[in-house]
Amino acid sequence: MKLTGKVLVAQGGGPTAVINQSMVGAVLESRKFPQVTKVYGAINGVNGIINENFIDLTQETTHNLEQIAKTPSSALRSTRDKPDEKYCLEIFDMLQAHEIRYFFYIGGNDSADTVRIVNAYAEKSDYQFRAIHIPKTIDNDLLVNDHTPGYGSAAKFVAQAFTGVDLDNRALPGVYIGVVMGRHAGFLTAASALAKKYHDDGPHLIYLPERAFSLDQFLMDVKEVHDQYGRCVVAVSEGIADSSGTPIAATMLQQVERDAHGNINLSGGGLGDLLASYVKNNLRVNRVRSDTFGYLQRSFPLAVSSVDQSEAREVGEKAAQFAIWYDADGSVTIHRTGDYSVDYQLTSLDLVARYTKLMPDEYINDKGNYVTEAFRNYARPLVGSLPNIAHLRSPSITKIIKK
Amino acid sequence: MKLTGKVLVAQGGGPTAVINQSMVGAVLESRKFPQVTKVYGAINGVNGIINENFIDLTQETTHNLEQIAKTPSSALRSTRDKPDEKYCLEIFDMLQAHEIRYFFYIGGNDSADTVRIVNAYAEKSDYQFRAIHIPKTIDNDLLVNDHTPGYGSAAKFVAQAFTGVDLDNRALPGVYIGVVMGRHAGFLTAASALAKKYHDDGPHLIYLPERAFSLDQFLMDVKEVHDQYGRCVVAVSEGIADSSGTPIAATMLQQVERDAHGNINLSGGGLGDLLASYVKNNLRVNRVRSDTFGYLQRSFPLAVSSVDQSEAREVGEKAAQFAIWYDADGSVTIHRTGDYSVDYQLTSLDLVARYTKLMPDEYINDKGNYVTEAFRNYARPLVGSLPNIAHLRSPSITKIIKK
Repeated sequence: MKLTGKVLVAQGGGPTAVINQSMVGAVLESRKFPQVTKVYGAINGVNGIINENFIDLTQETTHNLEQIAKTPSSALRSTRDKPDEKYCLEIFDMLQAHEIRYFFYIGGNDSADTVRIVNAYAEKSDYQFRAIHIPKTIDNDLLVNDHTPGYGSAAKFVAQAFTGVDLDNRALPGVYIGVVMGRHAGFLTAASALAKKYHDDGPHLIYLPERAFSLDQFLMDVKEVHDQYGRCVVAVSEGIADSSGTPIAATMLQQVERDAHGNINLSGGGLGDLLASYVKNNLRVNRVRSDTFGYLQRSFPLAVSSVDQSEAREVGEKAAQFAIWYDADGSVTIHRTGDYSVDYQLTSLDLVARYTKLMPDEYINDKGNYVTEAFRNYARPLVGSLPNIAHLRSPSITKIIKK
Repeated sequence: MKLTGKVLVAQGGGPTAVINQSMVGAVLESRKFPQVTKVYGAINGVNGIINENFIDLTQETTHNLEQIAKTPSSALRSTRDKPDEKYCLEIFDMLQAHEIRYFFYIGGNDSADTVRIVNAYAEKSDYQFRAIHIPKTIDNDLLVNDHTPGYGSAAKFVAQAFTGVDLDNRALPGVYIGVVMGRHAGFLTAASALAKKYHDDGPHLIYLPERAFSLDQFLMDVKEVHDQYGRCVVAVSEGIADSSGTPIAATMLQQVERDAHGNINLSGGGLGDLLASYVKNNLRVNRVRSDTFGYLQRSFPLAVSSVDQSEAREVGEKAAQFAIWYDADGSVTIHRTGDYSVDYQLTSLDLVARYTKLMPDEYINDKGNYVTEAFRNYARPLVGSLPNIAHLRSPSITKIIKK
């Protein structure tokens, strides 16, 4: 059966450095099929659909699309809208009004759920329609997938950021705390260990949302590392929480806000700054610094992983193939088939939508303050090549004055 | 005259992504001269000298030195010590004890001053000695120099960071504030404009320490941009100060600390967070975000400028040539000779030491909230090549439902 009609592509959720590869992959692959009459793009994800904000991607030159593929962030723009049933019905009505027969939505587990609900309306209405979710998230937290497009490049940024700050910390020693994105899954924070080469390279400690965070234990850990190396570099996930599940950022910030009697919003650098002052006030360390990597992590043009780029492109192309060749619905998922190789499958939307994948236990050390070799073996291929780092190996000169 | 003896190389102040190029340039060039008996490195800058903490760089392989040249941050480590006269005398005594005849110190204007004082002691004591300051600072604030090694790479990071966050802000609109290093000179913050391509690209506003900062004017500026584009990306120097010269960070933070009755140190993300909450509380904008780029700026391995790399290497090599061939003291300075080409001169230490170069008026717009084309022409060659960024140009689809 050849389902003739229009394709609609949209991008949802937080942008990544390679999400445009998926969009361009889906668009160019769709344009090859004679039964595709037009390829539309929705501006601002599902929000653009219900507001009928479409553009005609059929009129883009292939050359410009290839340039856009290499441009970070979502060229079709995005939305934080989380559609409920009613919203999804509006989406479906609009798709039907424009005779959209193929819908490709690039996003995380919320986007997968939207695709699932919209597709259910189509089936109920007997409207001939294929809907595919294309995976994307820097958090690497989609079920079924070995890993997700967007993660490799964000991980490359985080790994290189820690290489840089660790070299900086060697030159001017002290305690350094870098706060990495990731509210529930620690994969991105764990990537801080991927460029580690020498045994004393930082980060020396890594705290993930998958393990309860204790300020006391944190302080003891930092002291131990600092006593050993005279310095300590720490990677902390923004989502770390205490044993009751309350985010540390919330517990520490509430205290500040209550004391201040004001409307001070400390969301940006808050957690890092407060952990830094906690170390400064409780350990005898002169130089304590913190940075919150923030929005730099997900769209830095110079930290794109070549592996991530290729895979993001392919999940987009595969979406078009699964829908148009195979007349199927679902979520494109990535599966590791070798060291290192992958293949793509179409998985039921039910299995990918809504839920979050967390770091498996084997990727976290027993103390809950670092990652294992298993994690490094898993994640290292995803970031592509990294520049070589070297240290001096010169012998010391015998002292003649200060013996 | 051929002055036979040892060379000592040291690195001071904040690390940069290319400071090892200068070190390696000085070491390899020195090793070519027969009158150089050994090449020492001081660990931790001047602090390593007075503590007699030397290593023998003569024993490094050329290959490893070339790897180190490409490694960011100071391989010989650094120091924040700011030597006074007594400290400089200790330095001189130690250099004399080890029969150091050539001293190359890579650093900013404080380091130049140290070289100047140590050299004066040598002259007073009739000790045959050549001392050269090799320029380095991401702040680009050394007098006489057209620009300084380290700036180009940090500027590349800042330019690319703003490219990324601007693309991100297009996808999920709001107000974004990025805080850039630079307490007195605004060159690095100004670099936020270097990758701007399309007329509506951010940053839309740039605030520099060279102009008095007014919270009221800032708010009006942000509102105007946000009204026009539905979003606003702002670059702010960490050193912005009010008309009395008081840093904005200090005025806003003092208030918080006083209210809090505590020891809360908000140095890290403080300024950005407080500016963000100020916008949120005073303008009707839903999404206000801020990041403080912090230590990521000066040693990110993937943001090294090829131009910066070459020049950092050459100032190191020229230092050895000026001292050993020409038997001269001074500071190696960079001079622009074409568009784009440079040459190096040896300048009196008096003219480079101590003082700070600020952004000239012609690089700042009349309103004091952006940079001029003159600045972009000046700084663009220094960052080397940047990845191309492209936008979609598809026509909109005529609405059939929501007309």
